[in-house]
Amino acid sequence: MTAVDALTLEEKASLGGGASFWQTSEVPGVPSVVMTDGPHGVRHQGAAGDHLGFGASDPATCFPPAVGLAQSWDRELVERVGAALADEAQAAGVGVLLGPGINIKRDPRCGRNFEYFSEDPLLTGTLGAAWVRGLQSGGVGASLKHFAANNAEYDRMRLSSDVDRRPLREIYLRAFERVVRDAQPWTLMCSYNRINGVLASQNPWLLTTVLREEWGFEGAVVSDWGAVADRVAAVAAGLDLQMPGDTFEADAAVVAAVNAGTLEQSAVDRAARVVARTALLARGGKREVTVDVVAHHALAREAAGRSIVLLKNDDDVLPLAATGSIAVIGPFAATPRYQGGGSSHVNPHRVDSPLEQIRAAAPTAEIVHAAGFTTGGSGDTHALQAGAVDAARGADVAVVFLGLADSDESEGFDREDIELPAEQLALVEAVAAVQPRTVVVLSAGGVVRLAPVDAVVPAILGGALLGQAGGGAVADVLFGAMNPSGRVAETVPLRLEDVPSFPHFPGEHLHSRYGEGIYVGYRGYDMRKQDVLYPFGHGLSYTSFAYESLTVSADGDPVIATVRVRNIGKRAGREVVQLYASLPASSVSRAPQELVGFGIIELEPGEAGEVSVRIERRDLAYWHDRLDRWVVEGGSYRIGAGASSRDVRLEQTVEVAGDDVFVPFDLDSTIGEVMANPTAAAALGPAFAPSGHTAGDNALGMDVAKVMASIPLGRAVKSFGGGGEDALQRIQALLDTINSEAGRS
Amino acid sequence: MTAVDALTLEEKASLGGGASFWQTSEVPGVPSVVMTDGPHGVRHQGAAGDHLGFGASDPATCFPPAVGLAQSWDRELVERVGAALADEAQAAGVGVLLGPGINIKRDPRCGRNFEYFSEDPLLTGTLGAAWVRGLQSGGVGASLKHFAANNAEYDRMRLSSDVDRRPLREIYLRAFERVVRDAQPWTLMCSYNRINGVLASQNPWLLTTVLREEWGFEGAVVSDWGAVADRVAAVAAGLDLQMPGDTFEADAAVVAAVNAGTLEQSAVDRAARVVARTALLARGGKREVTVDVVAHHALAREAAGRSIVLLKNDDDVLPLAATGSIAVIGPFAATPRYQGGGSSHVNPHRVDSPLEQIRAAAPTAEIVHAAGFTTGGSGDTHALQAGAVDAARGADVAVVFLGLADSDESEGFDREDIELPAEQLALVEAVAAVQPRTVVVLSAGGVVRLAPVDAVVPAILGGALLGQAGGGAVADVLFGAMNPSGRVAETVPLRLEDVPSFPHFPGEHLHSRYGEGIYVGYRGYDMRKQDVLYPFGHGLSYTSFAYESLTVSADGDPVIATVRVRNIGKRAGREVVQLYASLPASSVSRAPQELVGFGIIELEPGEAGEVSVRIERRDLAYWHDRLDRWVVEGGSYRIGAGASSRDVRLEQTVEVAGDDVFVPFDLDSTIGEVMANPTAAAALGPAFAPSGHTAGDNALGMDVAKVMASIPLGRAVKSFGGGGEDALQRIQALLDTINSEAGRS
Repeated sequence: MTAVDALTLEEKASLGGGASFWQTSEVPGVPSVVMTDGPHGVRHQGAAGDHLGFGASDPATCFPPAVGLAQSWDRELVERVGAALADEAQAAGVGVLLGPGINIKRDPRCGRNFEYFSEDPLLTGTLGAAWVRGLQSGGVGASLKHFAANNAEYDRMRLSSDVDRRPLREIYLRAFERVVRDAQPWTLMCSYNRINGVLASQNPWLLTTVLREEWGFEGAVVSDWGAVADRVAAVAAGLDLQMPGDTFEADAAVVAAVNAGTLEQSAVDRAARVVARTALLARGGKREVTVDVVAHHALAREAAGRSIVLLKNDDDVLPLAATGSIAVIGPFAATPRYQGGGSSHVNPHRVDSPLEQIRAAAPTAEIVHAAGFTTGGSGDTHALQAGAVDAARGADVAVVFLGLADSDESEGFDREDIELPAEQLALVEAVAAVQPRTVVVLSAGGVVRLAPVDAVVPAILGGALLGQAGGGAVADVLFGAMNPSGRVAETVPLRLEDVPSFPHFPGEHLHSRYGEGIYVGYRGYDMRKQDVLYPFGHGLSYTSFAYESLTVSADGDPVIATVRVRNIGKRAGREVVQLYASLPASSVSRAPQELVGFGIIELEPGEAGEVSVRIERRDLAYWHDRLDRWVVEGGSYRIGAGASSRDVRLEQTVEVAGDDVFVPFDLDSTIGEVMANPTAAAALGPAFAPSGHTAGDNALGMDVAKVMASIPLGRAVKSFGGGGEDALQRIQALLDTINSEAGRS
Repeated sequence: MTAVDALTLEEKASLGGGASFWQTSEVPGVPSVVMTDGPHGVRHQGAAGDHLGFGASDPATCFPPAVGLAQSWDRELVERVGAALADEAQAAGVGVLLGPGINIKRDPRCGRNFEYFSEDPLLTGTLGAAWVRGLQSGGVGASLKHFAANNAEYDRMRLSSDVDRRPLREIYLRAFERVVRDAQPWTLMCSYNRINGVLASQNPWLLTTVLREEWGFEGAVVSDWGAVADRVAAVAAGLDLQMPGDTFEADAAVVAAVNAGTLEQSAVDRAARVVARTALLARGGKREVTVDVVAHHALAREAAGRSIVLLKNDDDVLPLAATGSIAVIGPFAATPRYQGGGSSHVNPHRVDSPLEQIRAAAPTAEIVHAAGFTTGGSGDTHALQAGAVDAARGADVAVVFLGLADSDESEGFDREDIELPAEQLALVEAVAAVQPRTVVVLSAGGVVRLAPVDAVVPAILGGALLGQAGGGAVADVLFGAMNPSGRVAETVPLRLEDVPSFPHFPGEHLHSRYGEGIYVGYRGYDMRKQDVLYPFGHGLSYTSFAYESLTVSADGDPVIATVRVRNIGKRAGREVVQLYASLPASSVSRAPQELVGFGIIELEPGEAGEVSVRIERRDLAYWHDRLDRWVVEGGSYRIGAGASSRDVRLEQTVEVAGDDVFVPFDLDSTIGEVMANPTAAAALGPAFAPSGHTAGDNALGMDVAKVMASIPLGRAVKSFGGGGEDALQRIQALLDTINSEAGRS
């Protein structure tokens, strides 16, 4: 870009550092851009910014945080939310909104899980890309974050996430790869933590090799606020913009390093070019927008409704009749918990209380509210509980709002358990004991142990965090104005101890070993055949769906799975159809099944329809550790279609041709590996044939052929009488020939 | 030693390589030593060695392999077995017996687990040291193996065991450390595998830093047969003796490397010195011995009896009366499985069949034998089963011998599951259906899933592998001539999927990630609060014991735990009293409890006595990852005394003073860490006090103090307005002062 070519080194360096807490630097030809926190609302500190960014922000629509929105499994809805956010950002003069947060929910205790979508990278990546598309369609840039492997708040600015290549690629980087490739966010934010010992902000493998060279990222890499320890090292590694500002000393260090020859000029050029690109994109996308706060509130309410999961509904307790008497219990009914604490905390235009919305939805019903408990545990617990029990006993139905308070979970720390407060469990047990028709509505940014609740009540709505319009959405679902279709995006385990990462989270002494490897979320529960309370993908409806057929196209890439579904209940409803793939005969350790696609269908009672889902070849791949690249293994894949990961209704098998895989031979190749190659077997002859040693000369009661097959060629020669240096050289020449022939084919 | 000082470089180099498959080289002043496989018998290939060592060996006493012997939990017995092995080795002219194998049983599928003791390093190390003491007291050297982290047979010559420092130190190296420090084995055998990417045979950290410099090992490091890929690199790393011979080319390479200056002369000197030391120790220890094979058989029978675990004995089905009719079922009754396949496979003097021994023990009883099944699954399964069922129905009691065959488990490969063959499970179910008094005797080198057996029979003897005299020992226990006192040394889980390492074993693509970390064996089951079938340390008796008191001395190191036990049953018996420690308030992630000691007491009916157990300070330590050394944390340790890890009967608390721990401060230290130091807090003042930011300026609903506390000092200064380079230098100087003061104190 000419604008950057004309700049001095000093000007280029200054583009790589922020001008203030929220603004990039301005140089000739390149305007400044305002970046503000997101992602579920625009947190714009218009009048009074402060040097730590902790202060008040201007009012904005608070959409459901990712923990809620993800439960919609609805790309189109997420895209519309993104577009609405773009309007609000435009109106505030914001050029880049810092989101989406797409880190994988490795462990339910992570304090920031409410900002993330799912335990599954396909769901995360698909929804993350939709969000970016929606936002950027409105001329506002996204900042895909936090890159990467930032899955705990504990010691978050120093902790090294120690992750092996397969889980890093298949779980933790996979959603990033998808969003970068499919939606090209203007910017990407590197995380605070280390990855295998190297700070994300200074990690050339992460920011350059993987992000730019492999994935083709064209945007700017922004540091999380304060993530840079050494700006020169960061720029060399691939970081483009250090935030927050001001960064005069660091800018000067960049200039000095270039002049001293310790930093490539080209790195500074690159950083300046992509920061300028961001600024110019923002200027080019600028629109005059008047935000329709009423329409946005309505969208927030729609999104919140779609985010609610009907976890349980025995005896069709729900939907409620809008008549008779209803006991509404819990402080969250009057003062909802609707977003999480931290940088994403939006100052909402308005907040709907569930209690008022219930009153509005059932104007003729008798609504009694009892607090039942306090979130801080203060007050007369016994009296509060007794009051709630009395109210429940006297009513036709009780709706109990349970959940976590701001002080229980937030950015900046992790939870130590996944328990609901004891007084809440005691309350719901007491209420359910007198009122069999008790419905629980849960508000929490992270998964809580619901088994004790599930054990005593017939119906539960998983509300996650629903944003400013959640109160109305809860009323919509409670009374059936909206038929719920949300699905859990994170498994609800029976016990914290069952969580795959349980023994390893959050880490200690500067390190967190991702010991569970690729077995995160349902992959882990499935692998160990563990019972869970609500499996990944679970969610009920006020109607029922029959899966009538599944057909799978086998010709070409992608595979198209077509599922015919019929609404066999009495209400119109939406079904989230999920496709899971597995390769039972895989040559590597793999999860029993993986989500490879999903689709939504809306059907009237009795109506049938088809959902067609693309299963992309890349989503069947695994990371081949020896070749260090994605590989699709050939074979018979089982494709299952179902209503959850543990409610697969139909299965088909599809033959998929595998990628060419050849691991070059060397002297560390085993006899077994090499003798499986016909050319090698013919040349090496019977001396190396494992089967030559099975008969007669074995007094050890062991399988000599297996033992022989596992010996590396080089050691067979050197230690077990296979010959000397001459033999080694002859074998090396043979292997070279085979390798080069394989390379040509 | 003068003998070595006088040698030429060529002679020294030749001492570092074997002369033949089983012999070290001879040079002037240094005799050759014969080394042969152990550890549960002397596998001496006297007449006809072969170049792969697979051929027949001379007859020797086959004692119980480690999987059995470990179940005795009996140091004194193990030491006597070691002494008997020394006699047999002496008689055969063997100077070093290759054992004990003390690798940790990480996963029940490891094919070589039958050669190892336990999932617990304290039990393993204690018994391993006893074995070495016994053997070396007879003038024969041990070879402690396989060093290290060799816990699978899969791709065993290449696989990298990828283990973090804490599990490596606390689990996988800990027993080696104990045996080296306490018993100084003459030699130690490095393993085939890689550790964190580096071959054990060429690993300077392992063979020099840890083994020699930290632990003070004085002996010779021998390669496992064929473990050396590059002799020069191995010698440099700390390997002393490459086996097997002949190694002329490798010896020459060592000479060439010294002459070329690429290998230190001192490394060759060291290797020659310790190999010569071994040879001279062997010569000095040489005795004229006549092996009393009858006495050794009797010792083998005693050891086998002590190795049997009474896993279950509902309604006191056992011991059996030596009268009436007994159906003995299963081919293992007539042809016992008593040792494992592979290098440890001994050619026994004789093998007692359980069937004949049962006949001998109950001469007046009517003993009917039915095969019931075949180990290969051949034959008419239906007819075999029907015959066994008929025999069981017609008898007063049935004794069913179940187990794994040689072909199911062996050195050289791992099992893929832990199932007993389906025909055996079908058989025992059918037999138990007609004969409620059915006793199962299990023979297997590895843990099998016993839940389906436990579900149908009232009594189970865990026989593991019992050596040549196991048949008589089984009869001794069945009829009560011996009251069983064995304890499982490895947890028997309910399902394979519950095993901590389940998703990670055995590895693939050259790597095995030890993802479960320190949570191996009961540490893992306890951590996740998982039910198991038979917990670590479990074992019943024909009598019962009451734990009357536990007292714990708190003054000094070691802690002495004294347990008063009373035999409250009707037979004399032995109790294995186990001591477990835990530190509930630990600052690091630790197992809920760890075995820290055990003792055995024999009591007549009604008699009471005391067992005193030393709990050594080192066994309370954990590996401090930031300081990279053992640390004993100060605090209130809970000491539990019990009959198994899940049958802790008495508890006491003991205050233990902690080691001094100071992690030096630097600019990556967090504000929270530094401000906890009064000197730093006073000097840095309120600007860095996290509490200074909690009031007023927080609109984010988060705990600002926690967020502030987690910011590294350097980044606080650079990114969040804490000052510039000047401030950094001032802070660095302050930290230097604090560090040096801490260093002085």
